[in-house]
Amino acid sequence: MPIRVESEQRIIRLQQELRTKEIDGALFIYPIDIYYFTGTRQNAVLWVPAEGNPLLLVRKSLARAQEESLVADTRPFPSSKEFPALFKPTIRRVGFTFDVAPVQQCNFYAKLLEGKEFVDVSAINRELRSVKSAWELERMHESGVRLCEVFSQVPQFLRAGMREIDLAAEFECRLRKAGSEGYVRMRAFNQELFQGLAVSAATSGQPGFFDGAVTGRGLSAASPHGPSTATVAANTPILIDYTGVFNGYIVDMTRIFVIGNLEPTLRRAFDAAIAIQQYLSANLKPGAICEELFLAAADMAEQAGLSRNFMGAPGENARFVGHGVGLELDEFPVIAHGFKVPLKAGQTVAIEPKFVFPDLGVVGIENTFAVSTGGGVKITDLPDDIVFL
Amino acid sequence: MPIRVESEQRIIRLQQELRTKEIDGALFIYPIDIYYFTGTRQNAVLWVPAEGNPLLLVRKSLARAQEESLVADTRPFPSSKEFPALFKPTIRRVGFTFDVAPVQQCNFYAKLLEGKEFVDVSAINRELRSVKSAWELERMHESGVRLCEVFSQVPQFLRAGMREIDLAAEFECRLRKAGSEGYVRMRAFNQELFQGLAVSAATSGQPGFFDGAVTGRGLSAASPHGPSTATVAANTPILIDYTGVFNGYIVDMTRIFVIGNLEPTLRRAFDAAIAIQQYLSANLKPGAICEELFLAAADMAEQAGLSRNFMGAPGENARFVGHGVGLELDEFPVIAHGFKVPLKAGQTVAIEPKFVFPDLGVVGIENTFAVSTGGGVKITDLPDDIVFL
Repeated sequence: MPIRVESEQRIIRLQQELRTKEIDGALFIYPIDIYYFTGTRQNAVLWVPAEGNPLLLVRKSLARAQEESLVADTRPFPSSKEFPALFKPTIRRVGFTFDVAPVQQCNFYAKLLEGKEFVDVSAINRELRSVKSAWELERMHESGVRLCEVFSQVPQFLRAGMREIDLAAEFECRLRKAGSEGYVRMRAFNQELFQGLAVSAATSGQPGFFDGAVTGRGLSAASPHGPSTATVAANTPILIDYTGVFNGYIVDMTRIFVIGNLEPTLRRAFDAAIAIQQYLSANLKPGAICEELFLAAADMAEQAGLSRNFMGAPGENARFVGHGVGLELDEFPVIAHGFKVPLKAGQTVAIEPKFVFPDLGVVGIENTFAVSTGGGVKITDLPDDIVFL
Repeated sequence: MPIRVESEQRIIRLQQELRTKEIDGALFIYPIDIYYFTGTRQNAVLWVPAEGNPLLLVRKSLARAQEESLVADTRPFPSSKEFPALFKPTIRRVGFTFDVAPVQQCNFYAKLLEGKEFVDVSAINRELRSVKSAWELERMHESGVRLCEVFSQVPQFLRAGMREIDLAAEFECRLRKAGSEGYVRMRAFNQELFQGLAVSAATSGQPGFFDGAVTGRGLSAASPHGPSTATVAANTPILIDYTGVFNGYIVDMTRIFVIGNLEPTLRRAFDAAIAIQQYLSANLKPGAICEELFLAAADMAEQAGLSRNFMGAPGENARFVGHGVGLELDEFPVIAHGFKVPLKAGQTVAIEPKFVFPDLGVVGIENTFAVSTGGGVKITDLPDDIVFL
């Protein structure tokens, strides 16, 4: 649980942003946003006025929220009659997270606070959270150590002929025993992820709905993502891409495993991925422009003659090479086409150059890094090499 | 994947509802809604006019959506310029799922379709889906068989002194190997579930955010739900409450395990839960009013002197005793206070009378049933008895 000073500093930074944007306060209803500012993820609503003290209104469980909350004024959710009186008449513009709040929820609160203007604070919220404090970076490093420990166990259970789903089950079992919290939060509408992927060459090149380079076949059209019942073959790349979630903080990494030998085309593509990661890692410095990093990575892929395979099956290539991680898997910043903003120190980013060959499988690498003046600090500190068994 | 006639019938039923409500069509953007009507869960948008043929507009992956979709007109998502031309000028009222669609998404489509009125079709959508076809009931029964098979393995790995998280990891490993798809869809805003719960008396009585009788402590304040690092003790109830997801269809069940003996208070409460389940099961018939079933169950709890412990820790009692299941864990109907609607044949409901004793743990039962003229048909067909080890 975050310490009190964390919560206070986060709220102060938010209040500064609100005042700059002439917004009179922000009303948060989304669980992980509330956790970020208060230290509790009970069912509650958080009001942060641009000036003054925050107020946490709890639906369930009040007892548990009062135990966990770092916000002094934590009380039961009021009746609809009492609710409006909590907002001073001078409050006119109310910030709301339009990116995740359903229309029904927005209408409910807009009706309670009739006459006030609701404005979107999604970007403010995401930008604030993208920069991690020293305390948060410690949590991210802890998560990294624990996820790496699970990855290092893979040679104990990976066997040729096993099904992808069995490989995934063995990995996930160890991940849970290591304390991973399982539920992986994603902010993007219509994305779903179950912890990660263990996919073999038979399925890893298949395109899909997922906003990433690799989707997998999954177990049915209802869940078309992740491992399938296909079996893992020798002499082909087996891609293990998993998240670990500890104290809410997500890290994300990928390693390639091969039982036997890897064919030269894939070996060369893997080396290109490592070179791209090395370039990006060296440049994960405050001020570097996200889009420029992506374009440089795409250029390196082109120089290697691998444009068509970069970050997706040919024709379905994703236009990014890295994404922020933290309390959500898809935080800011995105190392992507169109993301013309500078990196900031303390942001944490999963860098994942991958090459997709529909017939041969996928190779690549992924590590979570912290942005610093000396370049990326590796949070998932395990060797990058292909593991040959 | 559903057969074509399923998709056609679902769309015909929807169109009838739309015409009855004088809505000119429904625009679906939520993945599982789109899957229900089309058979594909790629990243897409579905337009169902009140009269005429549906249209599936795919963002990613088009190739995969075209393979899976049961809707004849499946094509790429158009440009913002082309989008409005897909809607006839006579279309005025457009149905939209306000329960799950974020404000940003709604604003995006409302702008594309300027001048049209967006109306909420959340209830229509949920009511339609609550009644399962014969084909869907077969899928639910298959899911039930597979989940029961995993529950029957528990005595092989449950041991006194193991941590809740290790018990959960062993269960989840077998669940995944049985083919469960892992990601459990919930519709309610701000609910999160990671497959289920394996919780011991040390934590099962703890209140929480989850809209159910049992939340568990979880692994941190960021993920305050499910198993913790507490250890499983002899002579206390161990509650295993898990979902299984196969071909998208979710079943939900709970069994109690005891290493050694159970104290008489808990034994009597368990017997009361079984009696309530028996009563409800016998009355899961078309026409029975959901609220009346709940009130009868609550009355039986009171007769047994267990009102305070029914469906939650004293003071945090939930006011329901069952919930619809299917493609989502929280479908209609809800056997709950305030839900004054009749059951319909073919609805599938998880019935879960539970008694929570903060100091002693939780006992109870949960099974998934189909509503039929002969009463509830048990889908999770495993003995209800406490398993003594």
